[in-house]
Amino acid sequence: MKKLINDPQDVVMQSLEGFALAHPDLVTVHNNPTFVVRTHPLDFATVALVSGGGSGHEPLHAGFVGDGMLTAAVPGAMFTSPTPDAIEAAIRAADRGAGVLTIVKNYTGDVMNFDMATELVEGSGIDVRSVVVNDDVAVEDSTWTAGRRGVAGTVFVEKIAGASAARGDDLETVAGIATRVNSHMRSMGVALAGCTVPHAGTPSFDLADDEIEVGIGIHGEPGRRREKMTDAHTIVATLMTAISQDLDLSHGDEVIVLTNGMGATPLSELYLVHREAVQLLAQSGVRVLRSLVGNYVTSLDMQGASLSVLRLDDELLALWDAPVHTAALRW
Amino acid sequence: MKKLINDPQDVVMQSLEGFALAHPDLVTVHNNPTFVVRTHPLDFATVALVSGGGSGHEPLHAGFVGDGMLTAAVPGAMFTSPTPDAIEAAIRAADRGAGVLTIVKNYTGDVMNFDMATELVEGSGIDVRSVVVNDDVAVEDSTWTAGRRGVAGTVFVEKIAGASAARGDDLETVAGIATRVNSHMRSMGVALAGCTVPHAGTPSFDLADDEIEVGIGIHGEPGRRREKMTDAHTIVATLMTAISQDLDLSHGDEVIVLTNGMGATPLSELYLVHREAVQLLAQSGVRVLRSLVGNYVTSLDMQGASLSVLRLDDELLALWDAPVHTAALRW
Repeated sequence: MKKLINDPQDVVMQSLEGFALAHPDLVTVHNNPTFVVRTHPLDFATVALVSGGGSGHEPLHAGFVGDGMLTAAVPGAMFTSPTPDAIEAAIRAADRGAGVLTIVKNYTGDVMNFDMATELVEGSGIDVRSVVVNDDVAVEDSTWTAGRRGVAGTVFVEKIAGASAARGDDLETVAGIATRVNSHMRSMGVALAGCTVPHAGTPSFDLADDEIEVGIGIHGEPGRRREKMTDAHTIVATLMTAISQDLDLSHGDEVIVLTNGMGATPLSELYLVHREAVQLLAQSGVRVLRSLVGNYVTSLDMQGASLSVLRLDDELLALWDAPVHTAALRW
Repeated sequence: MKKLINDPQDVVMQSLEGFALAHPDLVTVHNNPTFVVRTHPLDFATVALVSGGGSGHEPLHAGFVGDGMLTAAVPGAMFTSPTPDAIEAAIRAADRGAGVLTIVKNYTGDVMNFDMATELVEGSGIDVRSVVVNDDVAVEDSTWTAGRRGVAGTVFVEKIAGASAARGDDLETVAGIATRVNSHMRSMGVALAGCTVPHAGTPSFDLADDEIEVGIGIHGEPGRRREKMTDAHTIVATLMTAISQDLDLSHGDEVIVLTNGMGATPLSELYLVHREAVQLLAQSGVRVLRSLVGNYVTSLDMQGASLSVLRLDDELLALWDAPVHTAALRW
């Protein structure tokens, strides 16, 4: 294993320091406990959004801190849930008097620690609501999760809930919109090669030269099944069939498609995968109104991609299109 | 080799089709010959910018087509210069009556084919000027180049020249600014693992588990020397020392730093590398006023990173900060 790092123990903090140096106008990084917060938040009382989870999925979540998206992010150690005290500190730093929505990917440790953090701020006058993201159609239960995992669709929730907060919606409304986004989206991914956690030093799983892992999660955990390597068209059809059936997509539906790289896949391949996805949806009469293609929710240096589909209505589309200014997403 | 593709012969065109599907408001992709052009260019007569080169470096160049940057891009086959007829077609499509600046990375084939294309449009009333980018301090001559190679600093040239064109500068001024940017910047890269061209199927070079290639180009061609793998701090010091000496950086200088991923390097590592670069420059009294961290000029699935430094003056900084709206760069 070769990585552009110093001591494996320092990767998360040194990377966050680089992130802060690159985006001083956007974010401030706190240490002990570790969290990232918007440097100059709007000074009127809007709902604050806090998300977080294990590191190794960059730009998620710190890359989405900024105007129109997250107020704060809590990066845990590599592939490890952030601690309750760090989440608590982020919630307190983010609150502007209108309450805080936490956006939690459905992993047992994340859910537990965000719950504990919420209990820690109880009685301090900060109103906290939570939405648990569970968009992955690949696996129902796993060693990491009860129920479905939360994966790349998290970007849809954070962007659209962030726009809802920015336009001045109250906490109940923002939470309702986040829940609606979560229920209208599905994701599924494929790996061509596993990832290597810095302090582990060996790949999370080994695939033969002619094998792929269908339905992988974002922690190098295994997926639905191992298959023979095949072409992009066939792989995309497998993913999109599972997503379409589960989301009950039908003729006339309008959607956003996120074609997401797992970390080590060239952009040229992601755009090629995106072409297959859009063409396949078009054959079912589903129109892709917006596209997002790139590395947004990664799994360190995993080779592969995931597809996420969000069924739109007019309000969700308007909130998606609303301005956003973060390190990783801006328009 | 496993890649998310169909037939290796179709990768470039199918990827461009996906690119067009993802960004219909921004770009139109032409086939036979292949080039990418801004869908709704400004209708008043500004200087048009055309760049291009072999594919495999995405988002360069097509990802930089849009307002405030390139008017058109000409993607060749994988790691292969675009043909003169494609460049000619792009120049004709891009021209708005105020002339065309071509931005050419210094590789023998690119320079030759852009020259031939310029001859092909001669006499048609289109004024064409050219700037050759040669920012790589690693290698003086190579099998691919006479003189220095053009690498990631190309982003600086395309962004700043694009802003110059957008504010209405004439062709001579835009060309002068592009030349000034080129002369004020230097780059150098390192590979931890080579890349694999789809139709080749095997890596461009093999590195042992404890080796790195210092001074690599963006086509998997070898660099200055092979060294033992070490930590990010030491690697960045090697690159930054070469850049600083060649650029004659001194106390009080103000710069932009681009920490660029070669394709398969996690964003967390790029930000960690960026931290080392900014801290090292600070020790010499050099201030980093702007940062760009991510995959901008890649080499397919190569593992590694490059650093590019541009010495600023007030005008270059203002042009860098000017609005840009492309698929890969937007503010």
